[in-house]
Amino acid sequence: MSAQQPPKHIGVILFPGFQLLDLCGPLDVLNILATERTLTLSILAATLDPVSTQHALQESKQSDFGEKLVPTHTFDTAPDDIEVLILPGGYGSRSEEKIEGAVEFLKGYYPKLKYMITVCTGSAILAKTGVLNDRRATSNKKAFTWVKEQNTAVKWVAKARWVVDGNIWTSSGISAGIDLIYSWIGEVYGKELADLLADQSEYERNTDAGDDRFAARWGAV
Amino acid sequence: MSAQQPPKHIGVILFPGFQLLDLCGPLDVLNILATERTLTLSILAATLDPVSTQHALQESKQSDFGEKLVPTHTFDTAPDDIEVLILPGGYGSRSEEKIEGAVEFLKGYYPKLKYMITVCTGSAILAKTGVLNDRRATSNKKAFTWVKEQNTAVKWVAKARWVVDGNIWTSSGISAGIDLIYSWIGEVYGKELADLLADQSEYERNTDAGDDRFAARWGAV
Repeated sequence: MSAQQPPKHIGVILFPGFQLLDLCGPLDVLNILATERTLTLSILAATLDPVSTQHALQESKQSDFGEKLVPTHTFDTAPDDIEVLILPGGYGSRSEEKIEGAVEFLKGYYPKLKYMITVCTGSAILAKTGVLNDRRATSNKKAFTWVKEQNTAVKWVAKARWVVDGNIWTSSGISAGIDLIYSWIGEVYGKELADLLADQSEYERNTDAGDDRFAARWGAV
Repeated sequence: MSAQQPPKHIGVILFPGFQLLDLCGPLDVLNILATERTLTLSILAATLDPVSTQHALQESKQSDFGEKLVPTHTFDTAPDDIEVLILPGGYGSRSEEKIEGAVEFLKGYYPKLKYMITVCTGSAILAKTGVLNDRRATSNKKAFTWVKEQNTAVKWVAKARWVVDGNIWTSSGISAGIDLIYSWIGEVYGKELADLLADQSEYERNTDAGDDRFAARWGAV
């Protein structure tokens, strides 16, 4: 556990077409942590309009299927004391227009953070800010070829459930964000608490950051 | 796989203090399914106001931590062709006032459904409608004693990741809803598709409904 005071203010970033579980997997664990520790959540987006998960692949199947989450602040009105930012991925990460607000915000805000966390192709978005240059990071394995093309100055790690480099934690695709957040809570708030939260959530953790069969499954190695 | 046409219209129920992952775990899998099949989602609540996960246990820690999801319909304006309903649990399930709209809606709507799915203490809410009487069902294991008290006419199963009885699928606590939904998709849309979606989500499934170490962990057996 880190000697410094554990974070009390967590922020998350929304953009159109974000992947629901990328965000809600880690957030649900933090929701439970907030019954044990005093925590504040800020939900940031380009505007205060609810942000939908829906994207073009669903629309191409004539599906009308998506969920909208409500932001608490815009990028322009974000509180200045957020210590941890969580950035999800999702199909929307492939659209420059949908993520440009997040990219500009992260460029300015990253230096203030204690921790930066990305899930899935959230690392491809973060890579566009330059802060991952020369750092080790991972991402979604089905999308790994596309992710690497977004910034070749990043030391992309194919076989990893998650990767930690300095204060930046990046996870593999979608579900991997849940394993990342338990490991991060173990590091920052203590291992016993992380295990208790996982048992309360009835979750079987993968506690080995190198244990990743999906890299081979999707041809990333 | 069932011989009948697979469902095209899925509904979910929100109430204040619902558990985020109970709902968003299964929904994220269905979001991906909606890129392979034509699906519609309706999100039902007492009113059209966004519904928050926040509850008293967080507030007692002075935490300001929660997320709001946006309904698409009220219980009074729900479409009449929903085939599958998903009901999450959460701390809000302990408040009669917070769930009374859902209970009344379910009493009237259940006979129209092809499938009813509950996650976590969602089964305690469904138990209040009477439709679980004399049926086998499971629920959250930490809350199991309280759940059983809600309706003793239900055949509560302590050691189960999920239980199927007729067209009602009930899962154990929080994370167990994800294993339930993959199994349900395997049954209804085909096993190959369920496995493909899990690989896309980089999720390690528990495919054994009887494999549940949390019943012992929380003293439910």
